[in-house]
Amino acid sequence: MTDPSVLVEELMRLAESGDVAAFRERAEQVHPSDLSDAFAALDEDLRVRLVRELPAGVVSEALAEMEPEERPSRVLEALSDEEAADIVDELATDDAADVIAELPPERADTILRLVDDREEIEDLLRYDEESAGGIMTTELVSVHEAATAEETIEEIRRRSEEIDDFYQVYCVSDDGKLVGVLSLRRVVGVPAYTPVRDVMEPAPVIVTPDQDQEQVARSMARYNVAAVPVVDHTGVLLGRITFDDVIDVVEAEQTEDLLKFGGAGGDETLGGGWVDAIRKRLPWLLVNLLTASMAALIIRLFQDTIEALLVLAVLGPVIAGMGGNAGTQALAVTVRRVALGLAPREHGLQIVRKELLVGLVNGLAVGLIVGAVAAMIGADRMLGFVVMLAMWGNIVVAGVAGASIPLVLEKLGLDPAVASSVFVTAFTDMFGYFLILGLATALIL
Amino acid sequence: MTDPSVLVEELMRLAESGDVAAFRERAEQVHPSDLSDAFAALDEDLRVRLVRELPAGVVSEALAEMEPEERPSRVLEALSDEEAADIVDELATDDAADVIAELPPERADTILRLVDDREEIEDLLRYDEESAGGIMTTELVSVHEAATAEETIEEIRRRSEEIDDFYQVYCVSDDGKLVGVLSLRRVVGVPAYTPVRDVMEPAPVIVTPDQDQEQVARSMARYNVAAVPVVDHTGVLLGRITFDDVIDVVEAEQTEDLLKFGGAGGDETLGGGWVDAIRKRLPWLLVNLLTASMAALIIRLFQDTIEALLVLAVLGPVIAGMGGNAGTQALAVTVRRVALGLAPREHGLQIVRKELLVGLVNGLAVGLIVGAVAAMIGADRMLGFVVMLAMWGNIVVAGVAGASIPLVLEKLGLDPAVASSVFVTAFTDMFGYFLILGLATALIL
Repeated sequence: MTDPSVLVEELMRLAESGDVAAFRERAEQVHPSDLSDAFAALDEDLRVRLVRELPAGVVSEALAEMEPEERPSRVLEALSDEEAADIVDELATDDAADVIAELPPERADTILRLVDDREEIEDLLRYDEESAGGIMTTELVSVHEAATAEETIEEIRRRSEEIDDFYQVYCVSDDGKLVGVLSLRRVVGVPAYTPVRDVMEPAPVIVTPDQDQEQVARSMARYNVAAVPVVDHTGVLLGRITFDDVIDVVEAEQTEDLLKFGGAGGDETLGGGWVDAIRKRLPWLLVNLLTASMAALIIRLFQDTIEALLVLAVLGPVIAGMGGNAGTQALAVTVRRVALGLAPREHGLQIVRKELLVGLVNGLAVGLIVGAVAAMIGADRMLGFVVMLAMWGNIVVAGVAGASIPLVLEKLGLDPAVASSVFVTAFTDMFGYFLILGLATALIL
Repeated sequence: MTDPSVLVEELMRLAESGDVAAFRERAEQVHPSDLSDAFAALDEDLRVRLVRELPAGVVSEALAEMEPEERPSRVLEALSDEEAADIVDELATDDAADVIAELPPERADTILRLVDDREEIEDLLRYDEESAGGIMTTELVSVHEAATAEETIEEIRRRSEEIDDFYQVYCVSDDGKLVGVLSLRRVVGVPAYTPVRDVMEPAPVIVTPDQDQEQVARSMARYNVAAVPVVDHTGVLLGRITFDDVIDVVEAEQTEDLLKFGGAGGDETLGGGWVDAIRKRLPWLLVNLLTASMAALIIRLFQDTIEALLVLAVLGPVIAGMGGNAGTQALAVTVRRVALGLAPREHGLQIVRKELLVGLVNGLAVGLIVGAVAAMIGADRMLGFVVMLAMWGNIVVAGVAGASIPLVLEKLGLDPAVASSVFVTAFTDMFGYFLILGLATALIL
């Protein structure tokens, strides 16, 4: 397949050459994802000019593919209300709601008033962005449960220009309640006069609009379904969520988890500006300053010990740092186990026990090496023994902490990813200095 | 929807009660994913007994849903060759290849000899596990490009019992080369006598078996396709990959990235034993021991300074630690940008520039606080100034390093996730001690 960046570059070249007709022709041939990348990269004025030259349907498809970081609403900002409304009309309602939500409220309102699907879009805007309602679309194919296979195929045919990705037909009762789903291959596999009621199947997954999007993604992955119906609390069919939205959710979740793990908060926009980054990260640095100060306080308690045995100022950071590393390893493994549902509550003790064993062995190995080196540097066997013990102890405790903290947070109903590596590191710093300085005070001085 | 764990628990209860008939009845009703969880949790003997009582088709569906960590091959191990072969026969060829690959080679060979799809499974076993060939299945619906819509629907009907998830019909030429794809909704939307050649579309994504699975996942997510065809280098259709495999890939990749970020190597099995964990993590700890020793060496160089100004032993770890935190933040953000393709090469300098600005502001803020505290503790304004400068400098350098390291690795064609937080932390430790001790030596002593 062609490398997408080649297509994007070609579009950019055509756009910048000013040959609008050639750009338009190519834009209608490429996949909307490639056109959306070109839109994101072009400068404001040129983009506005080109958008005006393209059919609203082509622009809307590209808009639907833009990443939230690329701010698809930018594309509408410079257009007239009527031009913007034409494009919004062509969008699936979930994408329309996403774009409208980003516009200034007054502008959004003016445009919405010109849009055919206004009511549906307004309904979608009411749901939390991270809920099933926030990612569902209202475009779907549904038939009454008494319809025949032939009527169903007719309905599919009728809607197929408007809906470009569907995997199931939803069967509803008189009052609009979802009673079953029908795969396309099942519809064509039965005699034409068969009532769908006789061949429909119960939906393996049904969600309500208030469910968390991550939970929806997890269910769809678990049951391998390309689409799930969304119903209200009385069972009335409201919309559907497709696998491509779910892949986006999984990726967004992955970003959030890594940022949290890295102590950056989790809600920073990846492509955002530096002011946004400062606002999101500084509060966490200040929190971490407090935890880092705990280690400093402990060192201060043992200042006399350091004065008497200056080599401890050299060895302390190694013991603290290695504990941090071992703790981060255990934390990463446990956070992922919890996130993937591979850490059922009744196995909590087993998971901690595993990390205890790992810490005992790895800590002894690293401790023996560092202890031997310390004994040679300090020319003091007792120093070597103290260093070995402190390193061993810190790595054991680090492993246990790395495994327990996310498990306890999960039990308390909190997000285990909040247990960022930064906090585990602060803890192992503190404990590492306490061990080496405390043991040295007790055994050497 | 019912909480899956309730269904799993119900199955477990039925299994343990010994009421095989009731278990069988319920197992045939629930989704294979739920049955697979019950299989994974049951003890060996009981599982073997139950598996023998269930139809091979039901067992195979559950097997296909088991996570690699749950070792689906275990289920076959205790069965006779014939019983195992019956189950393998019911599996899609990609799942069959995955299970067979885990069995001891001799056993695998004996079972394969009894399996109908032997040749196809053996072909699949030749591909790298992490390649498109390793995740594709050979079950698909294809028709000759000259076939009519009616004949195509007939073919779909014929195959629909055997293939339970398909989204496209593949159109091939006389020599088996892929010439186009046809969505189901398009087939039913045209008159019965239309040749598919006239209504098929070019596949937006086509992959070859040697392509990396992550690249395949990225393309499918980009182009929102539920299935992609796999062709050999001459264009002959070999198989297809569906979105559910891709969600698995995305999740596995996410695990790998977080483990690497956490300095745990990336290839540890999440549910694996402690011996495996030691083997995977100890080498990384030893590498980190080397980097941690660099910081110790720097401190050792300035031992006289510490002796003269003991408060530096207290403040050093705070400066080193905060640099580590700021560096980890920048690293997490940049690693994700690179992973999601949001960091095109030509923007490298911009990304580093952003982190420089963030570091300048955040570093100044944290530096002023810590400097003020240090000035009070040490009752020395110059000490406060040195601490402020060192903290500022370390946080700035940390941000630049956190952003540059993954970008440089990416440019060199290496995996940016290897730039684990552990290495950035080692670097900022070293640099932080160098700054505080060096500045103190120059400005105070």
